Amino acid sequence: MLYFPYLCISIWVLGFPVRTSALNENVDVLVLLPQNSSYIFSISRVSPAIEYARQQLANGHFAGLNFNFQYVSSECGVDALFALVDRAPDERPDLIFGPVCEYAAAPVVRVASHWNIPVMSAGALAYGFINKNSEFSLLTRTAPSYMKMAETFAVMSQHFGWRSVLLIYHDDKEERNCYFTVEGVHVLLEDDHDISVFVMDSREPLTYVDELIKPMYEHEVVIMCTYADVVREIMLNAHRRRLTTSNRLFFNIELFNSSSYGDGSWRRGDRYDNEAKAAYAFLNTVTLLRSTKPEFENFSMEMRKSYQKMGVDVCEINMFMEGFHDALLLYALALDDAMKSGYTKKNGKEITQRMWNRTFEGIAGQVSMDANGDRNGDFSVISMTNHETGSHETVMSYFGTNGSLQINPDFDPKLFTVQGAPGPPSSQPTDQSSGGLGLSAVTGIIVGGLLGTALLMAFYFFRKNYRITIERRTQREQCDGKHRQLREDSIRSNFSAA
Amino acid sequence: MLYFPYLCISIWVLGFPVRTSALNENVDVLVLLPQNSSYIFSISRVSPAIEYARQQLANGHFAGLNFNFQYVSSECGVDALFALVDRAPDERPDLIFGPVCEYAAAPVVRVASHWNIPVMSAGALAYGFINKNSEFSLLTRTAPSYMKMAETFAVMSQHFGWRSVLLIYHDDKEERNCYFTVEGVHVLLEDDHDISVFVMDSREPLTYVDELIKPMYEHEVVIMCTYADVVREIMLNAHRRRLTTSNRLFFNIELFNSSSYGDGSWRRGDRYDNEAKAAYAFLNTVTLLRSTKPEFENFSMEMRKSYQKMGVDVCEINMFMEGFHDALLLYALALDDAMKSGYTKKNGKEITQRMWNRTFEGIAGQVSMDANGDRNGDFSVISMTNHETGSHETVMSYFGTNGSLQINPDFDPKLFTVQGAPGPPSSQPTDQSSGGLGLSAVTGIIVGGLLGTALLMAFYFFRKNYRITIERRTQREQCDGKHRQLREDSIRSNFSAA
Repeated sequence: MLYFPYLCISIWVLGFPVRTSALNENVDVLVLLPQNSSYIFSISRVSPAIEYARQQLANGHFAGLNFNFQYVSSECGVDALFALVDRAPDERPDLIFGPVCEYAAAPVVRVASHWNIPVMSAGALAYGFINKNSEFSLLTRTAPSYMKMAETFAVMSQHFGWRSVLLIYHDDKEERNCYFTVEGVHVLLEDDHDISVFVMDSREPLTYVDELIKPMYEHEVVIMCTYADVVREIMLNAHRRRLTTSNRLFFNIELFNSSSYGDGSWRRGDRYDNEAKAAYAFLNTVTLLRSTKPEFENFSMEMRKSYQKMGVDVCEINMFMEGFHDALLLYALALDDAMKSGYTKKNGKEITQRMWNRTFEGIAGQVSMDANGDRNGDFSVISMTNHETGSHETVMSYFGTNGSLQINPDFDPKLFTVQGAPGPPSSQPTDQSSGGLGLSAVTGIIVGGLLGTALLMAFYFFRKNYRITIERRTQREQCDGKHRQLREDSIRSNFSAA
Repeated sequence: MLYFPYLCISIWVLGFPVRTSALNENVDVLVLLPQNSSYIFSISRVSPAIEYARQQLANGHFAGLNFNFQYVSSECGVDALFALVDRAPDERPDLIFGPVCEYAAAPVVRVASHWNIPVMSAGALAYGFINKNSEFSLLTRTAPSYMKMAETFAVMSQHFGWRSVLLIYHDDKEERNCYFTVEGVHVLLEDDHDISVFVMDSREPLTYVDELIKPMYEHEVVIMCTYADVVREIMLNAHRRRLTTSNRLFFNIELFNSSSYGDGSWRRGDRYDNEAKAAYAFLNTVTLLRSTKPEFENFSMEMRKSYQKMGVDVCEINMFMEGFHDALLLYALALDDAMKSGYTKKNGKEITQRMWNRTFEGIAGQVSMDANGDRNGDFSVISMTNHETGSHETVMSYFGTNGSLQINPDFDPKLFTVQGAPGPPSSQPTDQSSGGLGLSAVTGIIVGGLLGTALLMAFYFFRKNYRITIERRTQREQCDGKHRQLREDSIRSNFSAA
């Protein structure tokens, strides 16, 4: 573990004219984010957004609020916890922003909740943080969690009648964004869907693309969370096997309004571009709904200016920037309310409660916090609308606040029709047997013999190359026992890490 | 989460004659253990052992050491961490004893290592704590970890030439002792064994005993970690299916020299006793080697007296009592050495280093700490030696310090011979097919037809009742990819929780 030096940027909002306001308070904010700018939620990327929010607040009703931000580099490990517990009791912050990484966030939120310090994060998105009754009681999540993203799939499934879903994801064993994303989908769909999971632990799918394709035959819907290049590879292979043209739905999850997993387009400038364009006609992308509000354009422009000044290479505004920006506004609103009720900035629980179940104007539009302190999310489903040029557009939108699905005119219902899992195209043993009943006796024996040999060989090959885990389904809908791995991990999450 | 009141037992060793000694020091020890005496490592069970050690020290070279023990109830959750971080910097202890539970221990060890406070525990036994290079650098484990127990199986496998192992364990999703135990065996055997894992999440195996038995046919060695009643149930069922008499090895792991998982005997006083006795003729138990040292008998007697006085119902001395007792002796030795080299009690790292790679006399015999700060373990393999009376004795012993396996005269080599995995007794499709080649044509067709129908039905039943997960083995010996669940969890352990 590397110990990154503390980077302290103290922004004392002093000297500007304090307007007559009920709110006069100094607020110490400890910001726990990585200094390493390879993270899309690094200090250099997020701090301009926080500063933008501070300036907004300074020009209005909240001008009397003086924020003292202390940025501490915490990467994704245990340094974030150390940054908090190393402080003497009288030096504890009034508010914590971050961490984003689940494993860094979990102990920080536990200790902060214990010390009555509100924690606001545009991260800590995993399912494990959803239980705010005890250890995570003072956590407010100002970006839509993975469960919110998963709602989009649950609503589509309800609308289009999905029964079986194959989840394919890449697990980097570090940040584990895709792992936690798929966990959310799994939790929401497991009760009434037949779900299988395929985990990739390397970036190259080429060597095992056959095994990856095989389970697709038995599922109506394929949902992927992995690198864009891998998605393209999978789509090309599925298309070559005519899996795309048999009423099967393919989804790619694009996380965080960011291209951290690569460019989601079919175009690569290689000799497979045409084939990929044809394959991508059947691929839908689920991503955060992109805002078009004029204020957001200004924010966007200001951010880019800051990045240029700092020499940081940022070409897109992601949800972490937006989430931490909005967090500061929300905190100001809640602190104001709490103080009006006679509380102080040290009443973390009271302030936190005033952040929840609340709607306010964020930088990209209206922000709706649910009763559990998690931001509702709006998501787009993007599909190819011009098969000639291969361009795509939003065909559906899901609005988390009221749980509605809005279907746009461009939507092609044919592409969203599933016809059940038809099973593998290779002829089933029984097909041959029944076909052979009318044949001569010799043929019957030969068929039986070939069948047995094929089974033996298949069994041998299978045993040698795969692990076969058999887990009993419990009786509740014979679904619960499935994918114990994910459940188990999510249970561990609840009481161990994230 | 319940907040248990702090239980402070301050034992100031004042007023007794301080003998001439180089060592005069007050040492503050924070003991983080559960108050709830349903835990076999509760404060009421472990504190008399610590007090016994303190008295031993007070009568010798270490009489000048004054220990101030503060017992804080920490259960198995995050309270242990709070007990540590709530203290002001000048109130931090010089030494921490516990926690035992992995999920409680992980954050405490991280913060304590960061603050240069040695942590000694007879728990924190999971594989995840083995890496002492960073987060767990000041952890010393004074009871044999699960990896030490697993060495016993690795050595037996090497000696008897095992190839395939079935691991059956119960996961309570809380303390997860059996989960972490089996993780250790898995880590040590996975490279050169074909391993399957069967997880039970309920205490009643009766409903799925068939699924549990099935994989036994394909494995030479069955290793179980679960409740004693469940072990008996499994053995009875395996015996009825003649699995015990086909050169297959059965092992039961008895944890902690304790009957917390129940009485390991075949005897229950029910109508299955005779059958169980016959089945248990093929069951071996791996457990900690029990000491017979006279000093241990005295310790044992004193402990019982203390428990009687406190009204605690304890009938056996377990490894936690022994481990924490020995921890205090080890700390005294290491502190003494460190102070002779000019360090103080505040030089946690220096003291810790002097605990590692060291041998000393513990309460139950010689204690050998490995170079990584983990206590080496000695284990017994206990088998039935009198089939008439059904009594059992130690037939083999494994000594962790030198890695040797000692085979006793009572050992019956016949019972330890494996003959490879013979496969399920149900006739394979090919057996019938090849058998049918000499039959009449009509028989051929009938056989083929029946076979197909059976397969179809089996497939239908199988799909309906089980989840089938297929994971690709990676190329390194086609073993690594197996049981990704365990690996994944162990990797998470490394950087998240335990």
